[in-house]
Amino acid sequence: MDPEDFRRYGHQVIDWIADYLSEVESRPVLSQASPGDIASSLPASPPAHGEPFENMMADLETVVMPGITHWQSPNWFSYFPSNSSGPSILADLVSSGLGVQGMLWSTSPACTEMETRMLDWMAELLGLGDRFRSTGSGGGVIQDTASSAAVCVMIAARDRATGGQATRKGVSSCSQQLTAYTSSQAHSSIEKAAGIIGMGRDSLRLIDVDDSFAMKPDALREAIKADIAAGCTPFLVSATTGTTASGAMDPLEDLLEICREFNIWLHVDAAMFGTAACCEEFRWIQAGCQEADSYTVNPHKWMLVNFDCSCLWVADRGALINSLSILPDYLRNQATDAGHVIDYRDWQIPLGRRFRALKLWFVLRHYGVEGIRAMVREHVAMVQELASLIEAEPNLQLAAPCPLSLVCFSHVDGDERTRQIMEQANASGNLSLSHATLGDRFVIRFCVGQWRTQRSHVEAAWKLLKSLSA
Amino acid sequence: MDPEDFRRYGHQVIDWIADYLSEVESRPVLSQASPGDIASSLPASPPAHGEPFENMMADLETVVMPGITHWQSPNWFSYFPSNSSGPSILADLVSSGLGVQGMLWSTSPACTEMETRMLDWMAELLGLGDRFRSTGSGGGVIQDTASSAAVCVMIAARDRATGGQATRKGVSSCSQQLTAYTSSQAHSSIEKAAGIIGMGRDSLRLIDVDDSFAMKPDALREAIKADIAAGCTPFLVSATTGTTASGAMDPLEDLLEICREFNIWLHVDAAMFGTAACCEEFRWIQAGCQEADSYTVNPHKWMLVNFDCSCLWVADRGALINSLSILPDYLRNQATDAGHVIDYRDWQIPLGRRFRALKLWFVLRHYGVEGIRAMVREHVAMVQELASLIEAEPNLQLAAPCPLSLVCFSHVDGDERTRQIMEQANASGNLSLSHATLGDRFVIRFCVGQWRTQRSHVEAAWKLLKSLSA
Repeated sequence: MDPEDFRRYGHQVIDWIADYLSEVESRPVLSQASPGDIASSLPASPPAHGEPFENMMADLETVVMPGITHWQSPNWFSYFPSNSSGPSILADLVSSGLGVQGMLWSTSPACTEMETRMLDWMAELLGLGDRFRSTGSGGGVIQDTASSAAVCVMIAARDRATGGQATRKGVSSCSQQLTAYTSSQAHSSIEKAAGIIGMGRDSLRLIDVDDSFAMKPDALREAIKADIAAGCTPFLVSATTGTTASGAMDPLEDLLEICREFNIWLHVDAAMFGTAACCEEFRWIQAGCQEADSYTVNPHKWMLVNFDCSCLWVADRGALINSLSILPDYLRNQATDAGHVIDYRDWQIPLGRRFRALKLWFVLRHYGVEGIRAMVREHVAMVQELASLIEAEPNLQLAAPCPLSLVCFSHVDGDERTRQIMEQANASGNLSLSHATLGDRFVIRFCVGQWRTQRSHVEAAWKLLKSLSA
Repeated sequence: MDPEDFRRYGHQVIDWIADYLSEVESRPVLSQASPGDIASSLPASPPAHGEPFENMMADLETVVMPGITHWQSPNWFSYFPSNSSGPSILADLVSSGLGVQGMLWSTSPACTEMETRMLDWMAELLGLGDRFRSTGSGGGVIQDTASSAAVCVMIAARDRATGGQATRKGVSSCSQQLTAYTSSQAHSSIEKAAGIIGMGRDSLRLIDVDDSFAMKPDALREAIKADIAAGCTPFLVSATTGTTASGAMDPLEDLLEICREFNIWLHVDAAMFGTAACCEEFRWIQAGCQEADSYTVNPHKWMLVNFDCSCLWVADRGALINSLSILPDYLRNQATDAGHVIDYRDWQIPLGRRFRALKLWFVLRHYGVEGIRAMVREHVAMVQELASLIEAEPNLQLAAPCPLSLVCFSHVDGDERTRQIMEQANASGNLSLSHATLGDRFVIRFCVGQWRTQRSHVEAAWKLLKSLSA
């Protein structure tokens, strides 16, 4: 496809997306496809000869769209928001067009230097403190997801606790069993990472939570002490600033004290709700994070950046690099040898990397800090109003504290009725909801974070939920 | 940014990329930036208020472009090709616009079902055999890179050898030391993965190579026997179909026999050169791969798909899923519970995932199988001609066999002179070259794979190299 054909078809694709986004609200939010529907409309083999571009555009409508669940709908209230804002889509397009590889500074200096600067911007925006800035001994990097970030952090912490032996000689060379800690409400990626890095999922202790579903510091301390008494080496605590199920906030300052006492790496997973810290009035959610060893937030959730863009900061970049660096001869170069530059391939699992910093650059400049704050405040206000309505409704009850943009609730008649309400609401096509289990209770999660969502959408959703709950 | 603004700015970005691609050939291939140049032209803090989109577009030219190394230049001959073809850029744009999350089948069925079908298409294109097709017990998945694919494969193999104990109870619970094998010419990602999964980098044996830089089967067998005698558990051999340094092909059929004898997982890393297998006449490079346990190829290298898109196939998908699956309550859904669908989050490290199958769909349909074959054949022919010229040049010598699209050579005066030639050529701005060490020798790598590269570009490069070598 030569540049002029690219120009022509590119305009068509931009128009197709603009049209899609202008009418996404009118589509049933959840795909109505059954297993196999989409596969059965795709040929069994690739075509021998090239087809006109128009064929693919036509098939987008007929083959692909029936299998699409509309995460960009303003009526999207389930899981988490996965925002594709205009400036982010276009920055990602620039990245695809340039097609550079950012594995080393030398393979495209702008890709590395802009990323370092954008992560410093983000650290300032969220009030993460100086330890995570590139100007000191720390620094930030863009990962694909908080799951991958967790693997990297756990490896660095594992190696700090074993003097690098776990990476060089293997976990089995360590004389003591390594143990890590997170709450029973933490994201599944922490347990998955424990399996990946070879410490074993069973050696991740799931610490009890209090009534607000936040980790109990006393329970953590007891677990650590018991493990030490049993001859284990506790090496990491993963705290959550906003759990997936209910948005619960672990008490970082208390956990920090415990981690200091026992010399344990404190990781903070703020993937979903960390964005709220851009507003002074919500910064309490992560008080103490400035003294943690690592911190993750996903701009690809609530901060208008399209997937993937997960930010990870570490206070000691040397720990991360020591664990993940390998320098084969074919990647050696003057800039790396001189030690004057960052090579981000040493901060992540993959070698190759896209120019993802462009998305942060475009989004932060297009909306400005105040624009992002305004969106966050609006979403929180909408959910706070909805929570009041739920609280006042005799048939419904709030299932957890609701400090930000996620409210969990259930029907007084119990789990079956609550599930029925969710399924009926989802089947209506008018919105999307997801669920969680809190305590033993099945609860509906209602999360506002799609940037197209207006008060009218939440009001319509409430009207439906109220009638289904009557 | 509302849909109409998106349309307007989107057309501008498309035009910017079309213009860039039409004149990329005229730019110096390697960025001339010094460390800190790009960072110093970026403000220290994010803007308080939003800026006009025009600002970002203007800064692309003045701030970003000086730090760009032009991987899309037809004069790109270093490392590996990282092709951003038109249909791939546009498919990725559609993916950004739809902004769906493919973590579960239910979160967007088209994302999952198209991926399964595209990986079946790719398996047919490359002649991988039925074991890797989704219709049997195997199947394919798109990973970001072959590095991440290696981690996933090594975890699955580790768990197969330990009955799942390594993931559940940790590597240290295994009574025997786990050992893995790859050649001394294998990609660094295999050693990196060995560190990540907790087996230890030291327990990856780097097997000797023969004169063609391919793994010696006898040396592999000896190493395995020695480890077994020492009480270790050999669990994985990673073979390379086309090494990074010189494109050497490990003898898969011999390795397969050894792996069968000792019940060891055979992984095939064909990241760069596997694409050649789309042509019957090059399929010899991977004879035997049809009986391996896993296989990786990166369409984001030589197959016109922009980064990231690495295809991984396994013969036993259950092994992969057992090692990587975690089902928290908040992700449970009817389709998953019924077992009728694939949830690709169980085939990879991250939870979230982009709709990357669209890129394969657009590229395979736009070019067709014959279009891709024609490109591969042209690139191979260009390099074969260049190799003949190098061979006929008294001052230069070929450093390794050159069966495909990569030729390695050196100057007869030795390493210093060879390095000087590479540095002078790169400094000219007219092309990009990279290097490797083969044996003890510093060699220049010349790789043709950028789809814009024509014979005239290779001829001009040869003219320059010849004069620098005189």
